[in-house]
Amino acid sequence: MTTVTVWNEYRHERESDTVAEIYPDGIHTVIADSLDKAGFETQTATLDEPDHGLSEQVLADTDVLTWWGHAAHEEVRDEIVDRVHEHVLDGMGLIVLHSGHYSKIFKRLMGTSCSLKWREAAERERLWVVEPSHPITEGIDEYIELEEAEMYGERFDVPAPETLVFTSWFEGGEVFRSGCCYRRGNGRIFYFRPGHETYPIYHTEAVQQVLANAVDWAAPGDGPTPTFGNYQPHEDIDLSDDRTVH
Amino acid sequence: MTTVTVWNEYRHERESDTVAEIYPDGIHTVIADSLDKAGFETQTATLDEPDHGLSEQVLADTDVLTWWGHAAHEEVRDEIVDRVHEHVLDGMGLIVLHSGHYSKIFKRLMGTSCSLKWREAAERERLWVVEPSHPITEGIDEYIELEEAEMYGERFDVPAPETLVFTSWFEGGEVFRSGCCYRRGNGRIFYFRPGHETYPIYHTEAVQQVLANAVDWAAPGDGPTPTFGNYQPHEDIDLSDDRTVH
Amino acid sequence: MTTVTVWNEYRHERESDTVAEIYPDGIHTVIADSLDKAGFETQTATLDEPDHGLSEQVLADTDVLTWWGHAAHEEVRDEIVDRVHEHVLDGMGLIVLHSGHYSKIFKRLMGTSCSLKWREAAERERLWVVEPSHPITEGIDEYIELEEAEMYGERFDVPAPETLVFTSWFEGGEVFRSGCCYRRGNGRIFYFRPGHETYPIYHTEAVQQVLANAVDWAAPGDGPTPTFGNYQPHEDIDLSDDRTVH
Amino acid sequence: MTTVTVWNEYRHERESDTVAEIYPDGIHTVIADSLDKAGFETQTATLDEPDHGLSEQVLADTDVLTWWGHAAHEEVRDEIVDRVHEHVLDGMGLIVLHSGHYSKIFKRLMGTSCSLKWREAAERERLWVVEPSHPITEGIDEYIELEEAEMYGERFDVPAPETLVFTSWFEGGEVFRSGCCYRRGNGRIFYFRPGHETYPIYHTEAVQQVLANAVDWAAPGDGPTPTFGNYQPHEDIDLSDDRTVH
Repeated sequence: MTTVTVWNEYRHERESDTVAEIYPDGIHTVIADSLDKAGFETQTATLDEPDHGLSEQVLADTDVLTWWGHAAHEEVRDEIVDRVHEHVLDGMGLIVLHSGHYSKIFKRLMGTSCSLKWREAAERERLWVVEPSHPITEGIDEYIELEEAEMYGERFDVPAPETLVFTSWFEGGEVFRSGCCYRRGNGRIFYFRPGHETYPIYHTEAVQQVLANAVDWAAPGDGPTPTFGNYQPHEDIDLSDDRTVH
Repeated sequence: MTTVTVWNEYRHERESDTVAEIYPDGIHTVIADSLDKAGFETQTATLDEPDHGLSEQVLADTDVLTWWGHAAHEEVRDEIVDRVHEHVLDGMGLIVLHSGHYSKIFKRLMGTSCSLKWREAAERERLWVVEPSHPITEGIDEYIELEEAEMYGERFDVPAPETLVFTSWFEGGEVFRSGCCYRRGNGRIFYFRPGHETYPIYHTEAVQQVLANAVDWAAPGDGPTPTFGNYQPHEDIDLSDDRTVH
Repeated sequence: MTTVTVWNEYRHERESDTVAEIYPDGIHTVIADSLDKAGFETQTATLDEPDHGLSEQVLADTDVLTWWGHAAHEEVRDEIVDRVHEHVLDGMGLIVLHSGHYSKIFKRLMGTSCSLKWREAAERERLWVVEPSHPITEGIDEYIELEEAEMYGERFDVPAPETLVFTSWFEGGEVFRSGCCYRRGNGRIFYFRPGHETYPIYHTEAVQQVLANAVDWAAPGDGPTPTFGNYQPHEDIDLSDDRTVH
Repeated sequence: MTTVTVWNEYRHERESDTVAEIYPDGIHTVIADSLDKAGFETQTATLDEPDHGLSEQVLADTDVLTWWGHAAHEEVRDEIVDRVHEHVLDGMGLIVLHSGHYSKIFKRLMGTSCSLKWREAAERERLWVVEPSHPITEGIDEYIELEEAEMYGERFDVPAPETLVFTSWFEGGEVFRSGCCYRRGNGRIFYFRPGHETYPIYHTEAVQQVLANAVDWAAPGDGPTPTFGNYQPHEDIDLSDDRTVH
């Protein structure tokens, strides 16, 4: 059974009535509940827990980690970022949500600024499926329409995804690559754009379906664990060269 | 005229007679001379210069930076890595050579461990062109043969390149993605495998040709400089929503 | 339950004692048996059956089609190629094996010559996993070694795969992209190199494992079926323009 | 000097006053003039010329071919499509424009249906640059705005491009991958969406700039011409195996 840890910064919900009304127990609770119903074994972790709730043991027991953060990216300690990074490279799946584009872990994995344009105007977004053969689109229609969304606009400064699954249209005139698949090390990463704290995005059925699909896709498999370092030849070659400066 | 800064760790050449014999004035000098002959405006920079020779001014004047390092990656100061990183995202080309796969700047840009298998046995390497329509293959035959090379073997823990240009065959039984193109931010990056310090790789004509081609390909163009941050709509939409927690 | 149709030209086995000794009931029987044991519902189809065994009904009932052909590619009727093509675009998975690189259906889907270098010398091949997070590598070691193989060498004239899973090393000095994933329409396609008729490749456990993994990966999902053609706007726009020449 | 052949169906302009008003001498003339001004050696060719103006000699003298067709795709003779296809695989660049998505040559090269959604409503289109480091964006702003355009909407049934350069926003609510780079054989292909016959798209400066950039990018280089077929080993291996059925 695939195990999921749903991570949330969990500050807005405790500080803003607007947000608390939509997510009284936090964004993580809504996401975790939906993944639980989808058949995954879920737990949650939040910024203000010790180790941000991400101890070595928690990560060792996690197949897929989902990440929502926004205002406190800088408060995530570097050693925890190192730890998550290592687990992703070792095969743990990672689903980065909405404003998590600016999280330390996403920027670390992408190697770029992960910057974008944004606007809060509760405008309409339509996420179009551009790669219908990808498993993350299971059970999804040709598009997902969200009546109220924060706009994210291109240029999204990330490496081109291995597979671009969704592209968003915004009422105000912009587009965005809103569903992006990556591989880093042995880990699979999915960035999914929707999810602003002041709109009830994660209560949307289609969004929950995408998250469940993404967990399935990102869950680690049983592929080889690469070995690295000095390596003996398979073929019978001359090993007498000694000009090394190692 | 495209300007190139050839960076070199420049330690082996001063510490090892074996290396000094091949590169008496340093690997950087041989590379810079070959790029100079190819028509680029070249300068060099090395680890033990102030700021590792990479002041803000030097980088501002550099179209393409080439990077060779091996034993002293950890001595490259983080603030200089930050500086180079920023220039790459702003459009400076970067060519990472051989053991530079483990440099801080390459790992930063890739987001992975950049690990690989290796063996020093002066064995034969044959770099096969797998994408002959790529400009980095200009003037190159179907393959480049190097009689004595250090082996690098897969799994090479990097993101899949946008374009895979060369794949290497090694006498001892391994393969390697040895010519890899990436885009990060506005910058173009090329990783090129050949170049061990104890073999005269950079004196090889075909290798010099690839380096010149790579400089041409990686040189910044005149594409748009993306703007980021809060953004006004192009279309006439309702901007009255005030549920922000920003 | 995923249904697989294993297609085979089935000529060499009936005409050559060398091949018949390895595959007395045809290559298809060995592949079908191994996929059956892996839990798929399998059937076979061959060139000399009516419609090459690929009636509309057979394809409608097929989740994944595997294709082995070699000497009689030209005898595959164009209307059957059209039919298979349509089913792939509609979501049927396709696994193209070895000399199937020159089949009409693979060339149709790739849009290129699909040419390569080849040599029959019963030489050693080592298929290295270059993307260990891909599900096609489930249960596979870092490499698969085949003691006797036909060589296929680069340049392999195909579009760069969306994901390159395996790269082969050959004793005689060549490399080859030997495990290549593509999407075409709603269909997933995997090209897998091993499989020469005069060597017992498909009796190899690791090869059978890759085939089973590939069937799992290529099986159609439940993503959206795109609609095409004239389309009404989602937004309220002016539709009065009548300058059409349609 | 790069030579360009601008191909046009050239029917609408002779049959419709609406179109003739915008392109009195044909779409090809406007495109050819703009490329001529950009410094290329241009000629034109149209459907109703012998061999559609695409003799073996014309193609042999062409570095980059641009293709506009719409209503008469089926009238393009298969042998000419074969000829163009062969030249692309041999290195000739190809720029496919707007409704050329349904041309025989584009479908041949893509291997898919190349279908899409469309609507003629003279609506606003905004092409966003998503890959600003690509040379096709030279001199272009963050977006190109076209006040009156035909809508093309996703799902665009093509293989995912190697590089996605532009993504379009449409007033009516759709998005489209409107600037797509491919490699097929030794040839570079660029699909560029704008260009409907009833709107003066090709008179737009930014569109002309993209076309000039695309010609530069697609022009053939001097990379290796791959050899195919039976191949002698580089290494000293045993060639005594005689179990061939070739």
